[in-house]
Amino acid sequence: MRIGVIGSGALGLYYGGMLQRAGQEVRFLLRRDLQAIQTNGLQIKSVNGDFHLPQIQGFANPEQIGPVDMVLVGLKTFANDQLIELTRPLVGPETCLLTLQNGLGNEDLLAEAFGADRTLGGVAFLCSNRGEPGTVLHLGEGKIRLGEFSGGLSRRSQQLADLFQAAGVPCEAVADLRRARWEKLVWNIPFNGLSALLNQDVTRLLNDARCRQLVEELMLEVVSGGNAQGLSEPIDGPAFAAQLLHFTDQMDHYQPSMQLDRQAGRPLELEAIFQIPLQQAAARGVEMPRTEMLLSLLHASEQA
Amino acid sequence: MRIGVIGSGALGLYYGGMLQRAGQEVRFLLRRDLQAIQTNGLQIKSVNGDFHLPQIQGFANPEQIGPVDMVLVGLKTFANDQLIELTRPLVGPETCLLTLQNGLGNEDLLAEAFGADRTLGGVAFLCSNRGEPGTVLHLGEGKIRLGEFSGGLSRRSQQLADLFQAAGVPCEAVADLRRARWEKLVWNIPFNGLSALLNQDVTRLLNDARCRQLVEELMLEVVSGGNAQGLSEPIDGPAFAAQLLHFTDQMDHYQPSMQLDRQAGRPLELEAIFQIPLQQAAARGVEMPRTEMLLSLLHASEQA
Repeated sequence: MRIGVIGSGALGLYYGGMLQRAGQEVRFLLRRDLQAIQTNGLQIKSVNGDFHLPQIQGFANPEQIGPVDMVLVGLKTFANDQLIELTRPLVGPETCLLTLQNGLGNEDLLAEAFGADRTLGGVAFLCSNRGEPGTVLHLGEGKIRLGEFSGGLSRRSQQLADLFQAAGVPCEAVADLRRARWEKLVWNIPFNGLSALLNQDVTRLLNDARCRQLVEELMLEVVSGGNAQGLSEPIDGPAFAAQLLHFTDQMDHYQPSMQLDRQAGRPLELEAIFQIPLQQAAARGVEMPRTEMLLSLLHASEQA
Repeated sequence: MRIGVIGSGALGLYYGGMLQRAGQEVRFLLRRDLQAIQTNGLQIKSVNGDFHLPQIQGFANPEQIGPVDMVLVGLKTFANDQLIELTRPLVGPETCLLTLQNGLGNEDLLAEAFGADRTLGGVAFLCSNRGEPGTVLHLGEGKIRLGEFSGGLSRRSQQLADLFQAAGVPCEAVADLRRARWEKLVWNIPFNGLSALLNQDVTRLLNDARCRQLVEELMLEVVSGGNAQGLSEPIDGPAFAAQLLHFTDQMDHYQPSMQLDRQAGRPLELEAIFQIPLQQAAARGVEMPRTEMLLSLLHASEQA
């Protein structure tokens, strides 16, 4: 299968690298890492064992990549104003698109431009950071849950799940992508938001009793926002929050992507992770005062 | 009248200086500014005109001050664990105590130690900062609203108001001190909290539309907390919030005391301004989720 990766950050490089190692033909759209990777290949330093891919097909612009069987989108959502133009040259008659970006609204952009029937999305539970140019640090996890933008458990989504599984990436096809997206937000909203605002990793956040309670309150708000969207099955708030807290307690001083974005002076993914979820909740009459407040604080601190 | 000032920061020095200039005998308990003031006196740089008091009675410990007619307390509330021992040597049979400290709980400490019948409190609307040792910057405002800890419009509270008025300090005696305290919190909770958390002055905060809305939401929460306390007359939330926003819009990049405390690495007045008000609101069944969240964030950021 020919796969084109748009947005070759930690996520795009890691999954693209795993797929290439498993024998897929992967073409990367590169920016920061182009020269390093063309010279030295891609180094993945993983908790599951390091590996090196000496030959990488890296390109500076999407026209050089051309049509592929699947576009894998890992672009930071704050660059979504470029998403369609970057993706268009990769889309042929049979191409499907899978976005693993954070938050809500990404599949919608792809579906509007290229058709809902080719659009899939997924949530990635991946702890990874970029290292030196040409190097990705895989710190843990990596599971993907993917599904059709239009819903339902398609044959295609199961094939894609098999593709990732065969490449050593735990992957599950889900019938209700929106539910998976909201479940992911239950983690992303508190941990990305608070870590960026306070510049504290997840372990620091959870070791402070008041802050841990705030994390849980935010989680329950997000669950109530999600459950108002008519999911196939409601999320069990308290149980799911407890599960995520336990899961996060195992992470050793992990710095969420938004904290790293803030440290690096990059924009924050506020629209996809905060604004659109808040809009969707408000459209169903659900208030999320703490989430709203966290967005306001992040927004205000971004102007600093 | 012999007046002893405990807590000679910007507030204590300014009001004490004004009273001395008007002919009262004022004795200051000094720490940081002791030597500078004993050598050069006290310089007040005020929007209403600078003045200099060459002779100041400054003391390093309260025993040297001895009994006074009135103790004026301007101590930062995070030092309240020293409040009683610092004050005790100034208290004779006829002494009354007036605390102008921030937040709630201060009169309670004085009343418990020295008697409710001698205890008064007041809220100061004062924009002032400390300058170099021996210098206070008075940036604007200065009005005091004071009243009896036990409530009611006493002759004594009216006499004290006259004393301040005669010294050029706008001052009003109020029958319901608790109401005045809660009204002040309607300003202090959003502006002190957000300025310290985001390190942004009031003008920056209000110029950000989302943040301005958050300020107003916090104000309305505080009003609902206050109105649950059985005040003599409820605070009209929307009107009062609008008035405070308008008032604060006139301030030119004013940095609230908590922002300065944070910048200087001092502790924050979280107990008096946040914790006790939240406890009193919760005791009456009123939730203040944004205020609670702001406290959690300030608390977490204090551990940084």
